[in-house]
Amino acid sequence: MNLDNALLASSEDKLLYLQKLLVLEDDLLVKEFFAELSEVEVAHLLASFPANVRQRVWLCVPDDFKGEVLAKLSEETRSSLMVDMKESDVSELTQDLGAQEIADILDTTAESMKEAVIEGLDQNTRDQIQTLHAYDDQAVGRYMNPEMVNIRQNVTLETVQRYIRIKDLLDEASQEIMVTNQDNRLVGSLRLVDLIKQNQEALVSEFMHSPISILDEINIHEAAVILRSKGLHFAPVVNASGILVGQLNIEDIIGITREDSEQTQMTMSGVSEDELFSPVMKSAQSRGIWLGINLATAFLAAYVIGQFEAVISQLVALAVLMPVVASMGGIAGSQTLSIIMRGLALGQIAGKNRLWLFNKELWVGASNGVIWAIVVGIVSQVWFNDWMLTLVISLAIAINMTVANVSGIAIPLLLKKMKIDPALSGAVILTTVTDVVGFMSFLGLATLLILD
Amino acid sequence: MNLDNALLASSEDKLLYLQKLLVLEDDLLVKEFFAELSEVEVAHLLASFPANVRQRVWLCVPDDFKGEVLAKLSEETRSSLMVDMKESDVSELTQDLGAQEIADILDTTAESMKEAVIEGLDQNTRDQIQTLHAYDDQAVGRYMNPEMVNIRQNVTLETVQRYIRIKDLLDEASQEIMVTNQDNRLVGSLRLVDLIKQNQEALVSEFMHSPISILDEINIHEAAVILRSKGLHFAPVVNASGILVGQLNIEDIIGITREDSEQTQMTMSGVSEDELFSPVMKSAQSRGIWLGINLATAFLAAYVIGQFEAVISQLVALAVLMPVVASMGGIAGSQTLSIIMRGLALGQIAGKNRLWLFNKELWVGASNGVIWAIVVGIVSQVWFNDWMLTLVISLAIAINMTVANVSGIAIPLLLKKMKIDPALSGAVILTTVTDVVGFMSFLGLATLLILD
Repeated sequence: MNLDNALLASSEDKLLYLQKLLVLEDDLLVKEFFAELSEVEVAHLLASFPANVRQRVWLCVPDDFKGEVLAKLSEETRSSLMVDMKESDVSELTQDLGAQEIADILDTTAESMKEAVIEGLDQNTRDQIQTLHAYDDQAVGRYMNPEMVNIRQNVTLETVQRYIRIKDLLDEASQEIMVTNQDNRLVGSLRLVDLIKQNQEALVSEFMHSPISILDEINIHEAAVILRSKGLHFAPVVNASGILVGQLNIEDIIGITREDSEQTQMTMSGVSEDELFSPVMKSAQSRGIWLGINLATAFLAAYVIGQFEAVISQLVALAVLMPVVASMGGIAGSQTLSIIMRGLALGQIAGKNRLWLFNKELWVGASNGVIWAIVVGIVSQVWFNDWMLTLVISLAIAINMTVANVSGIAIPLLLKKMKIDPALSGAVILTTVTDVVGFMSFLGLATLLILD
Repeated sequence: MNLDNALLASSEDKLLYLQKLLVLEDDLLVKEFFAELSEVEVAHLLASFPANVRQRVWLCVPDDFKGEVLAKLSEETRSSLMVDMKESDVSELTQDLGAQEIADILDTTAESMKEAVIEGLDQNTRDQIQTLHAYDDQAVGRYMNPEMVNIRQNVTLETVQRYIRIKDLLDEASQEIMVTNQDNRLVGSLRLVDLIKQNQEALVSEFMHSPISILDEINIHEAAVILRSKGLHFAPVVNASGILVGQLNIEDIIGITREDSEQTQMTMSGVSEDELFSPVMKSAQSRGIWLGINLATAFLAAYVIGQFEAVISQLVALAVLMPVVASMGGIAGSQTLSIIMRGLALGQIAGKNRLWLFNKELWVGASNGVIWAIVVGIVSQVWFNDWMLTLVISLAIAINMTVANVSGIAIPLLLKKMKIDPALSGAVILTTVTDVVGFMSFLGLATLLILD
């Protein structure tokens, strides 16, 4: 058993290797393995076990890693590990961490422990944590790094370099140095690249640039969208009076971006992000709401079918073909929905182009509707040899697919106008529409054209 | 009409503002507006128009922007703009671009134009482009930046700084400087932060670190997964003999990451990423395959129902409740599928934990199945007042939801074992299973218990 190159192995290989080590019950080997990995990787491995095994794995994490690893875990995984921790444990773990990381960890703990741990910190970190905790959960200020290096604009680059060396400033993640005036107001930002490559006798003011600053009170997801749309990987954070209060680094922005795109995907099927290894009862419960909502819409569709019992009992083939109509509408609508949701997320749908898109979807729906109506018609005719039935199902397919495409754009745009997140309810409303319209058009036409 | 702060406006606001400017037909205003934006933003705005309007907007892009903007567009959007371009236009646009960007743009052009444009470039860029084009479409080598700064390990930091200034090396995106030996083999990497903050008399060898290098031939998506799993934002690229050939920057890695997560979402509904503003016929066609596959599965479900015509014609209520069984199974299965797909993407599912997860999903499915069977049973009893029907639907719901959850994990794991991308076909296979099992258990039980 061997992992030839721990550095380049895939997450899956590392997980398999760790599982083998755990079977051997030789904790020393596990510790050695962890020592070769980064904190991100160890955190990721911990999240790949059910809670009871996770506790055991946690004991093998090297002590000088534990704090960083804990900070990188999701809230659910972290709290599963912190259940039995004492105040002194938490204090020890957090002693070498930055304010941002400590604040994250303390968010998972009880109020009493939180206060006790904060008490034990140095004044500077304590102030920073208090600043972070003062912000709203979703505010930029809660996510920013409150530690940063700032300089004045009327000094030379050489002086800045010397200052950094003497004071031992900057860390691995540093990208830019903020330039402020006496009031701590942001006046510019100096890239490390420029600090190195420009004439060292020149003043900071000559090479600093005006960065795009982000207001500390705005929503972190909005901030991520703005930064992403500009291709920016760094932003100073200022408060309403223009005072520099922190910075957002590439790490923070990437984290939020990934979270956002995953969350959309998960939200659309009504499951939570962290559910893979959570206990049965918790999972069953968390999926319940979505199942309940779906049941209500399914009964609505059933109610529609119930209105047409007469025609179904006369021609059972209707019951046989019924799901085809609903299903084709459902797929066509969800294709449009996916495209529109992406466009909305990227801010590409606004003003006049909505009409263009509406029109486009109407025509895509109608042309696909006609094409597939013909295909379904042929199959139906061959199968049941009933021209009336073929006419009814062809018409219903064409109608439902057209309505489905138009709904695929109309529903998310309407929800957005009503300030409801389309990711949350768009799909279920759409399915309800395509089911109801599908059954109603199919069975309704059948009642008109076939029922004696 | 005014956009108070072009810098901080959302993508949507910028799009609205641009639409207004276009109505005024004052191209100068549009040009002024574009000049305030970054290339990423202009590219994004261009992608937010249908092809015919896009051409007009393109004419307003400031000339010194055009090349960069073109490089940042997706292939489809780019080719819509390049249709009428002459060789001289392309040569002019690409003159100030890096090899990576030129290679991207030339990928969109015809072979003859490609050669002519390459002919006009300087020897160095020409070589770099040839290197890039020699790689497979999906290889790391095709995505890397072949321009990089490399230094030797036995010089002082001070010398490195001076060398950078004299030669005017590094650009905005630089993060690390590669350290190589005489054979151009990678021996380490020096962070800009260390170049600044460490003792300037020290040698590079003292502060360089061993970076994780990526092989040029591996798949870019695999590379992105590795880098992400380590939280890395930079990687040197080496060939099979260890020679340094390029570097992957944060930009490249983020781009690939976002693409991947979006693509999964789009693939799952059978639409392509760039479809928002593509013409009706193209969209209708591209969605066709998926609709066709779905139709086949819908007919399979219809065939199953067709086997039970006898019992349906005896009790039409079965046709009414039938979709409820299929729909509950579909939702339960897709919940499991989303969770498993995410776990697979993150490499969290391997070896022994598959059994644990299987077991978990079985129990989540069974317990949710029983709970919802009771709920559906109550509604059915109130609605139809038929104990036998209530028994049949309750059993069918419990069976289908249990099978659905188990299938939600079994299908993607099986597909993966068969080396088929579960994102592509997982959802459609799952729906087929839940439909078929749903109809079969419901109507089959009805045949056994109700049919005279």
